[in-house]
Amino acid sequence: MTTGPDTTHLHPHRTGIWLIGARGSVATTAVAGCAAVAAGLQPATGMVTETAPFADTGLPALGDLVFGGHDTATTPLPKRAEALVADGVLPYGLPDAARAELAAADDAIRPGGPQHGDTRDDEELIAAFAHDLADFVRTHRLARAVVVNVASTEPAAPTSGGDRLPPSSLYASAALRAGCPYVNFTPSTGLHHPRLRAEAARAGLPYAGRDGKTGQTLLRSVLAPMFAQRALPVRAWSGTNLLGGGDGAALADPAAAAVKNAGKARVLSDTLGELPDGELHIDNVPALGDWKTAWDHVAFDGFLGSRMVLQTIWQGCDSALAAPLVLDLARLTARAHEAGLSGPLTELGFYFKDPDGGPSGLADQYAALTGFAERLRRGRA
Amino acid sequence: MTTGPDTTHLHPHRTGIWLIGARGSVATTAVAGCAAVAAGLQPATGMVTETAPFADTGLPALGDLVFGGHDTATTPLPKRAEALVADGVLPYGLPDAARAELAAADDAIRPGGPQHGDTRDDEELIAAFAHDLADFVRTHRLARAVVVNVASTEPAAPTSGGDRLPPSSLYASAALRAGCPYVNFTPSTGLHHPRLRAEAARAGLPYAGRDGKTGQTLLRSVLAPMFAQRALPVRAWSGTNLLGGGDGAALADPAAAAVKNAGKARVLSDTLGELPDGELHIDNVPALGDWKTAWDHVAFDGFLGSRMVLQTIWQGCDSALAAPLVLDLARLTARAHEAGLSGPLTELGFYFKDPDGGPSGLADQYAALTGFAERLRRGRA
Amino acid sequence: MTTGPDTTHLHPHRTGIWLIGARGSVATTAVAGCAAVAAGLQPATGMVTETAPFADTGLPALGDLVFGGHDTATTPLPKRAEALVADGVLPYGLPDAARAELAAADDAIRPGGPQHGDTRDDEELIAAFAHDLADFVRTHRLARAVVVNVASTEPAAPTSGGDRLPPSSLYASAALRAGCPYVNFTPSTGLHHPRLRAEAARAGLPYAGRDGKTGQTLLRSVLAPMFAQRALPVRAWSGTNLLGGGDGAALADPAAAAVKNAGKARVLSDTLGELPDGELHIDNVPALGDWKTAWDHVAFDGFLGSRMVLQTIWQGCDSALAAPLVLDLARLTARAHEAGLSGPLTELGFYFKDPDGGPSGLADQYAALTGFAERLRRGRA
Amino acid sequence: MTTGPDTTHLHPHRTGIWLIGARGSVATTAVAGCAAVAAGLQPATGMVTETAPFADTGLPALGDLVFGGHDTATTPLPKRAEALVADGVLPYGLPDAARAELAAADDAIRPGGPQHGDTRDDEELIAAFAHDLADFVRTHRLARAVVVNVASTEPAAPTSGGDRLPPSSLYASAALRAGCPYVNFTPSTGLHHPRLRAEAARAGLPYAGRDGKTGQTLLRSVLAPMFAQRALPVRAWSGTNLLGGGDGAALADPAAAAVKNAGKARVLSDTLGELPDGELHIDNVPALGDWKTAWDHVAFDGFLGSRMVLQTIWQGCDSALAAPLVLDLARLTARAHEAGLSGPLTELGFYFKDPDGGPSGLADQYAALTGFAERLRRGRA
Repeated sequence: MTTGPDTTHLHPHRTGIWLIGARGSVATTAVAGCAAVAAGLQPATGMVTETAPFADTGLPALGDLVFGGHDTATTPLPKRAEALVADGVLPYGLPDAARAELAAADDAIRPGGPQHGDTRDDEELIAAFAHDLADFVRTHRLARAVVVNVASTEPAAPTSGGDRLPPSSLYASAALRAGCPYVNFTPSTGLHHPRLRAEAARAGLPYAGRDGKTGQTLLRSVLAPMFAQRALPVRAWSGTNLLGGGDGAALADPAAAAVKNAGKARVLSDTLGELPDGELHIDNVPALGDWKTAWDHVAFDGFLGSRMVLQTIWQGCDSALAAPLVLDLARLTARAHEAGLSGPLTELGFYFKDPDGGPSGLADQYAALTGFAERLRRGRA
Repeated sequence: MTTGPDTTHLHPHRTGIWLIGARGSVATTAVAGCAAVAAGLQPATGMVTETAPFADTGLPALGDLVFGGHDTATTPLPKRAEALVADGVLPYGLPDAARAELAAADDAIRPGGPQHGDTRDDEELIAAFAHDLADFVRTHRLARAVVVNVASTEPAAPTSGGDRLPPSSLYASAALRAGCPYVNFTPSTGLHHPRLRAEAARAGLPYAGRDGKTGQTLLRSVLAPMFAQRALPVRAWSGTNLLGGGDGAALADPAAAAVKNAGKARVLSDTLGELPDGELHIDNVPALGDWKTAWDHVAFDGFLGSRMVLQTIWQGCDSALAAPLVLDLARLTARAHEAGLSGPLTELGFYFKDPDGGPSGLADQYAALTGFAERLRRGRA
Repeated sequence: MTTGPDTTHLHPHRTGIWLIGARGSVATTAVAGCAAVAAGLQPATGMVTETAPFADTGLPALGDLVFGGHDTATTPLPKRAEALVADGVLPYGLPDAARAELAAADDAIRPGGPQHGDTRDDEELIAAFAHDLADFVRTHRLARAVVVNVASTEPAAPTSGGDRLPPSSLYASAALRAGCPYVNFTPSTGLHHPRLRAEAARAGLPYAGRDGKTGQTLLRSVLAPMFAQRALPVRAWSGTNLLGGGDGAALADPAAAAVKNAGKARVLSDTLGELPDGELHIDNVPALGDWKTAWDHVAFDGFLGSRMVLQTIWQGCDSALAAPLVLDLARLTARAHEAGLSGPLTELGFYFKDPDGGPSGLADQYAALTGFAERLRRGRA
Repeated sequence: MTTGPDTTHLHPHRTGIWLIGARGSVATTAVAGCAAVAAGLQPATGMVTETAPFADTGLPALGDLVFGGHDTATTPLPKRAEALVADGVLPYGLPDAARAELAAADDAIRPGGPQHGDTRDDEELIAAFAHDLADFVRTHRLARAVVVNVASTEPAAPTSGGDRLPPSSLYASAALRAGCPYVNFTPSTGLHHPRLRAEAARAGLPYAGRDGKTGQTLLRSVLAPMFAQRALPVRAWSGTNLLGGGDGAALADPAAAAVKNAGKARVLSDTLGELPDGELHIDNVPALGDWKTAWDHVAFDGFLGSRMVLQTIWQGCDSALAAPLVLDLARLTARAHEAGLSGPLTELGFYFKDPDGGPSGLADQYAALTGFAERLRRGRA
């Protein structure tokens, strides 16, 4: 990780990660964690790209990643990091150890939008965002920059008043315009807006999404295939998520939760052949902070109609689950760009609730991912 | 399913299933359930061999299966079936619907051993068992018979006083002598005894084992790969099983539980690279009858040392989980025998806690199994 | 339990139980179960009135209870009972053993209302219901009859169009008019309608309610006092209920669920001083039939701000939980009537989510109940 | 809390708390937490003596408590406190805020025993400990000191070789000799040794025990009465505890776990009339540190033999659960001593798994405790 701009020449390996929502918990954890792992202060827990199958695949080194991004919030990253320590998300001492990197990333954050009272139209916003991106690449003499959306889930767009693009699509359009690969770690629309379709096809850039698979859906993507393979029909799959933090507050909006749930349901319908009965609740519980609890109740049939039940309880820290995947995705997408790939990276379905094609069970997705790594490795030879 | 011997000519498709522990819950459920499914009274829930990948693979039809076996118990199968209705294992009405098949199977059960006070030595017992098997095949004019061990788990053999073979190995040796394929659905020794090694190699018969994967270990075989693939180190994997019925009583013996646990641990050590901390308890809870509850607690590390937890609770009926797998295994092993295969069927690891080779994650095991089906299908062309 | 009307003289102990919703699962279970316990075929599990503190308190004997009621459904009770066996609610054989009592109760059921297309106004309906009740008491020469509402939860009344009384209040008014004590085992309005207030006060009859406490709220009424007594502040109490059957379908209506949840919340706010954060979901899961699963997640603070969690999972059969309480309440309320008591029986808060006064913790409610039993016993001396 | 000895005159309110195991997690948390609460830095969460019913009962103020104790460990308290921050037990910043109090308490800690290779006999050890206690009271000019055992559970004494007293009984005997009230927060023998019986009776001192009720048993003491009061027979009550830290390691010794479990079982047998089926496991899981997870599975019967299940999962920090109870008990026992009470304080059963008499359900124990507070209040008038 590089802490300041180098103004003399282009760095062939230096890769930018431009985070939409750059002052949120996930972004802060990714920036501080990248610094700590690069410095050898922490193991690379949760980073799949640091495991054996990804050796010699030409991914940018953690020390060559440079962070920036857009956000409408103004609390500086070092201060956000301190708050995450108090909330039990970051280990004590990390904000100090990563002070330089946090400050450097904070310097590279530009105001997001549209802000309240913003008079700019969509075109002006896209142009401004694309300019910020180009400036980031130039200032830091980056080989490339990947745009990653880690902002709060936005509500489902009303079908009627579709004059304006949702914010996530403004940023996605700006990425295309600036020639940057794009990763959508949220369930928001992003590149999936009909008005961006032609533009995305023309741009010749790789992209990946949607909605990082960090907890309950990760579990579902290994459990649902088990029921299918064992010929055990699922009668009902019910779930409740409790979470606080910014994500909890955003998802307390039923329109945002609906977007989230649509992706979560997909793994079940894709794997089981049809969507079983059962509801999925997302409750905002501020007392839990960034810690998430997900309870699942699966009622399934056994031989001769016997009624059986599997329940799972998953308790994890949302930002700590997401951050290593964000780093993985940025590195893989940057490398795909370098390799000249374009269009949806279906091999990255391992990371997403609602992927752009590819298999739906986690094991098959992992096989696709390691196959992708193998191709990248051979491409270097 | 055929209800009585046919004395006129050999049936090329009629296949015997010779159950060790033929009057136990699993055997009773398999016999009654096979009749109900063959008659179209019940769906083939839990029978993987009835799903699409197994079409046209030449498996014996459910209606061509003929049951017999050894047991030291004397309660007739129709009466056992009534008791299983009262215990909530079999649906009301099934014992009546399958009365003929239960009676026919009961007629074909021969006394097991060694009984209390038995004066026969190992060689005499093996000879008697092999004679029973040959008689079963001849009387019912079967194309072949598969021996399946579904008896209660036997205690670990004392290392010293190894003059006698454990009972499970006596039956396994009898299967070899009678030229019958062999499946060990329990963690008992069976064919894995050093003194049977040479004999097994010479026999040229297919065999499969050990210990059917029906609940907690099934879950572990999909969850452990998830942790490995996501680079999330498991710090401790703890579990408690509560079960009643005959299996609960048998496993209350620490020596029997130790045998069981060794197999259960294998999926974790094979998948995770090392066996994590954590104990595994098997408690006999008579009040639960044949219903089993398994609680697992997995403590794992997240990014930057955050501590996360997954808990699972599995509630299922042991016999209803096992019986369709027993039918699957008998059909697949019979077909392997017909196809001239011999030695360990590593492609059946999908069904076992402690398989004879092959991959350890369920997804890879399923791929191996469907690949096996594909080879059987092509073998018929 | 008496199976047919006796036309010769009044029975001083024979007590009627008039069930609103007399052909539902709870009513069927209560009628069949009362017969089985009275005949000594089943233990009196779950019947508090059969425990030591209630000896010699003058309650009507189980064999002296006579059942009837209103329902808009027409499936006869013996047939309903068979369906409950198939659903695992009633034990096999019970419908046969209680055939006479089920048929007798079914004969005493009269059509409820208002039916679809009913042209009768409130006054006509109340008069008809009261006439049915009086007829029941006379025909069976009963000392008295208690009206117990066990019908499905009705939606919250719209505040505006309040011209008509909700059905539960029509039945409650009919009970008053016929001089019958009244028990509301549901969260529906019943006697709690403002327009019945004066009438209830005038009637001089004992009554009790609302909403039987059978599962999650029962648990909450012992757990919430624990947190309060130990000075452990509850930060959030979240819950999800999964249930099928008629109650699941009725509570899938958000207006009905809202009524239910208001009562459930009361035990928390009364005990903890304020209602903690956290939502409460009621999901209709038809696959579960009459079996209910309730998951609760309680986030609480420990010493020095440590964050702790209690989770509970309750799995029970709704009708089997409710029926013995219905029998208890009918007996206690009949005895209160005999003893000349009138107004709300606050000592019965032990049975209700939303009681008419009295303490809110279960232990204090139990003390009040056994104190009531003691007064009844002394009243006989 | 006073940070150093005052050498001029006796303080009528200054009360000593002499902790056996004074450098363990519970002791460190109690000392640091008392300082933080006394200074207004933290709320008095979990301290029952700080709630309304205990106002004006004459308890020593938190600021008047002076800590000391015995321990064989030598790591200073300030350093132990830092380690507890890293383990997530104490909040960041607390060791600094309570530095003076931790150092003062550490100065007052004397070496425990018998140490490895100790040549002193029981009498010499008791005399040495009693001398340490007397010295503590005199140096700090205390009105009195309460001895509280918070050391690791010691193994069950072998029945035969009973020449030596167990260590916990040596300390208990020293307390008697020094005229100090005694509280046993552990399941170890302490005062319950037959050879201390006469001495305890003669001493005229108040005492209380055994084994603080902090988690699973606390829950059981509210849940078991619920089943009893509702006439729901418990068929089996099974449990597994996972914990790390020093207590986890100590209880990995089966002899120590057996002592612990005997107390835990008592609440069930006392409340339910008999001990239900079901085992209780205590597993040492170092990865969990001081955080404890307890799973309970209660199989109970419903009406007409229906089988129902309650499961609970309790996740808490052991030291944070124990420390406020230790402070409560020391204050209450000191006040009892001041009031001239002697013998077992049965009114403190609220705090113990295995109390010296009194009721077994938590609600009744709470009533006894608040009644005790009322008597103390009246005693001041």
